[in-house]
Amino acid sequence: MDKDLIDWIYTVSQADPRHENGGVLGSMTTPPPPEALKIVNHFISKNLGDPHLFKSLELITEKLVSLTRETLGLPPNMKGIITSGGTESNILALYSFRESLGVKKVVLTDVAHYSVLKASKMLGIYSEVVQTDFSGKFRPDDISKKIHGPSDSLVMTMGTTQLGGVEDPREILDDLNRIPIHVDAAFGGLTFPFINPEKFHGILRALISSGTNFTIGVDFHKFLGAPIPSGIIFVPEEIYPSLSFDVNYISSGKQFGLLGTRPGFSAAAALATLAYYGLDGLSKKAKLAYENTLWFLEEAKHRGLGFPVNRPEVPIACLSTDELIEREKLLEELAKRGFFVYRGEKCRGIRVVMMPHVRKSHLQRLLKVIEEVLISS
Amino acid sequence: MDKDLIDWIYTVSQADPRHENGGVLGSMTTPPPPEALKIVNHFISKNLGDPHLFKSLELITEKLVSLTRETLGLPPNMKGIITSGGTESNILALYSFRESLGVKKVVLTDVAHYSVLKASKMLGIYSEVVQTDFSGKFRPDDISKKIHGPSDSLVMTMGTTQLGGVEDPREILDDLNRIPIHVDAAFGGLTFPFINPEKFHGILRALISSGTNFTIGVDFHKFLGAPIPSGIIFVPEEIYPSLSFDVNYISSGKQFGLLGTRPGFSAAAALATLAYYGLDGLSKKAKLAYENTLWFLEEAKHRGLGFPVNRPEVPIACLSTDELIEREKLLEELAKRGFFVYRGEKCRGIRVVMMPHVRKSHLQRLLKVIEEVLISS
Repeated sequence: MDKDLIDWIYTVSQADPRHENGGVLGSMTTPPPPEALKIVNHFISKNLGDPHLFKSLELITEKLVSLTRETLGLPPNMKGIITSGGTESNILALYSFRESLGVKKVVLTDVAHYSVLKASKMLGIYSEVVQTDFSGKFRPDDISKKIHGPSDSLVMTMGTTQLGGVEDPREILDDLNRIPIHVDAAFGGLTFPFINPEKFHGILRALISSGTNFTIGVDFHKFLGAPIPSGIIFVPEEIYPSLSFDVNYISSGKQFGLLGTRPGFSAAAALATLAYYGLDGLSKKAKLAYENTLWFLEEAKHRGLGFPVNRPEVPIACLSTDELIEREKLLEELAKRGFFVYRGEKCRGIRVVMMPHVRKSHLQRLLKVIEEVLISS
Repeated sequence: MDKDLIDWIYTVSQADPRHENGGVLGSMTTPPPPEALKIVNHFISKNLGDPHLFKSLELITEKLVSLTRETLGLPPNMKGIITSGGTESNILALYSFRESLGVKKVVLTDVAHYSVLKASKMLGIYSEVVQTDFSGKFRPDDISKKIHGPSDSLVMTMGTTQLGGVEDPREILDDLNRIPIHVDAAFGGLTFPFINPEKFHGILRALISSGTNFTIGVDFHKFLGAPIPSGIIFVPEEIYPSLSFDVNYISSGKQFGLLGTRPGFSAAAALATLAYYGLDGLSKKAKLAYENTLWFLEEAKHRGLGFPVNRPEVPIACLSTDELIEREKLLEELAKRGFFVYRGEKCRGIRVVMMPHVRKSHLQRLLKVIEEVLISS
C-alpha cells in the first residue's frame, strides 16, 4: 500500500472549503446525514444497473419511486427511473420525446440549466432560446410563437439555477397544442412543494389535466442532501419503454436510463435520507432556508450591499453587485476570506444557495464580509 | 427519523447475493478496499463537477490521470476525463468524434458492449455491426470493407463483456485510412496490460504510431475495485475541447464530460484504490484471476460440464452449455443454490467473471454445483 499517496489525498483535501462552517455558499451540495453514509457503505459494491441480481435494489427503488411520486402528487401511471442527477434526467427527457413522440425541437428560456442545451446538442434536437427579462421572467407570447407543431417540445424550470425562479407553464398551456413538456425540477422538486404548495400543486394539476405528455426530473442529491449521484425522472407510461435498452447478459435482459453500471446507493441512500429527515423535517428545512433567503436579500438591500433582481421562489438568492464592484474581484476577495459564493451571470452579481447547512449566522458573516470588501475596494 | 424504513432497507438487503462468499460470479462488481471506503466518506459532499471550488479534486484528478496514463503507456498529449464508467466513456468518444471530426458512422462487432449501440442511437450516428464467429473473432475484411471515408469510425473492445476477448486493431490498421478509433477497455484496461503486456503495448504502440485519432476508456470500478461510479476516457488533445461545456456559474466557467454534479470520490477513491493495491498488487491479482479463468475452463471441459468456445484474454470465462441443459434452467438452478453467474449469449451458455473476490475454492464449488444440476436434470 502506498500510504504516502493516501495521506496526500487527505492532506490536499484540507484546503477545500467546508460546508459545516458556512464556506460553501453557492454549490448545491451539502453533507448527507450519518444514516445515509452508513447505507452508502453497506451498498457500495451493489450495481443499481442490475436490480435482478441485487434484488433489494428493485424493492428499494419501488419504495423510493412511490414515496417521491406521492410527495409530488404525480399520477400512478408515471414511471420513475433513478438517475445520476439533473443532467441525465434532462437528457433522458429529450431522448424519450425524440424517440417516442418524434420531437425535433426544444424551446427553453435563457435561465434553463445549461445541460438542456448540452442534451439537445448531443441528441441532435434543435434548440430555441427565449430571452427573459432581468428578473428571469419570460413573456408568454415569446414562447407560444416559437411553438408550431407536434415535433416541438418545451422545457420549464422549477427552481432556476440562475435566479431561483419557477417557470409557470399555466400561463401558456392553452397555446401549446399539447406538445410534450419537461419540467426540470432538479432543485425545486424537493423545496418548492413545501415553500409554496398551492402553486406547486396548481402547476402539476394543470399539467396532468391538460393531457399533455410531461416528464419531471428531481434531484435527491441537492436540497434533500442524499449522497451524489442521485436523482429521478418521472415519465408517462406510454413513453417509458423508449428508455429501456436491451442488455442480453443480465437476468432482466434490459436496463433503463442512460448509464450502465451505477451505484446501488443512488436509490438506497436517497431513501435513507428521506427516511432520516421525513417529509416534515424536509419541509421545515426548506421553509427555513427560504425565510433566510428572503431575509438575506432584504438585509443586503437595506445595507446597500447589492440589489435583489427578483423575489426567488426557492432558496437561491441573487444580488446584483456590478454597480458596486467588479464582480470577479468581489468573488475573489470573498474566496480569499473563505466565502465561496457563485457567480450570478443573469443578475450581474453573486448567487448564494441556502442549502440546509447554511445557517443564518453564516449569512450574517457573509454580509459583514461583503461590506468589508466593498469598503476596502 | 423513520427508523423502521431504514431498518427495512437493511433487512431487504440481507437477501442479496454476497461477493465475499463467492455468490456474485458474473457481475463486474467487487468490494472496494477499506481505505477507499474511508475516502468515499471523506469526499461524500464534494462535487467533481466543480474542481475549482473543491481544489483538491483538481490535484487528485491530475494525479489519477497521469498515473493511469503511465500505466497504459499513453502519450502525454492524451487528456484524461474522469467518467461514471464505460457507458459514459463510449458516449463521449463517439460524441467527440462527431463534433470534432465529423464522424457519421461507427463500425463495431457483435461482441461490443451494448452501450456502443445506445450511444450511436443517442447521438444519431449510424452503426454497422460486423458479425464475429462463435469464438468472437472478426474477419479483418469484414471490417475494412465497411470503412469508406473520413466520416467513418471504429470501436474495438479490449476485454469483451461477452467472451473476454481482445479485438486487435493491428490486423486492419493499414486498411482504415486513419479513421478515428475508440478502444473500449472498460474491463481490459486494468487487467490486460498485466496479463499480456506485450500484446497490450503492441496494440497501443501501433495505434500511437499510426497517427490515427484514438480514444480509450478504462473503468476503475471494475477489476481494480474502486467504488462505483468511476472510469476514465483519454482523448487526443485536439478533440478534447469538444468535450467541454460552458457553465457560467462555476468559477472555472466550464465542465468536461457528460454529467453535471458528480461524486468527488469518483476520482479520490479510485486513486486511493490504486494506492492501496499498487500496480504490483493489481498485476498479481489480474494474473491470478486469469490463471483461475483458464483453470476453470479446462476443468469444466475435462469434467464434461460445458465447452469453452475461446481462449479468453482477460479473466472472463464462457462455457457453452446449451447442448447439456436448457440455459435458463441452468441459470435458475444455480441461482437457487446461491451461485449467480451471468447469461452467455454469444457462447450459448454461462459466463463467469473472475473478479478479485472470486477465489479458486468458489470456482471449485461452482463446478461441483453445475455437476449436481446436470445430473439431477
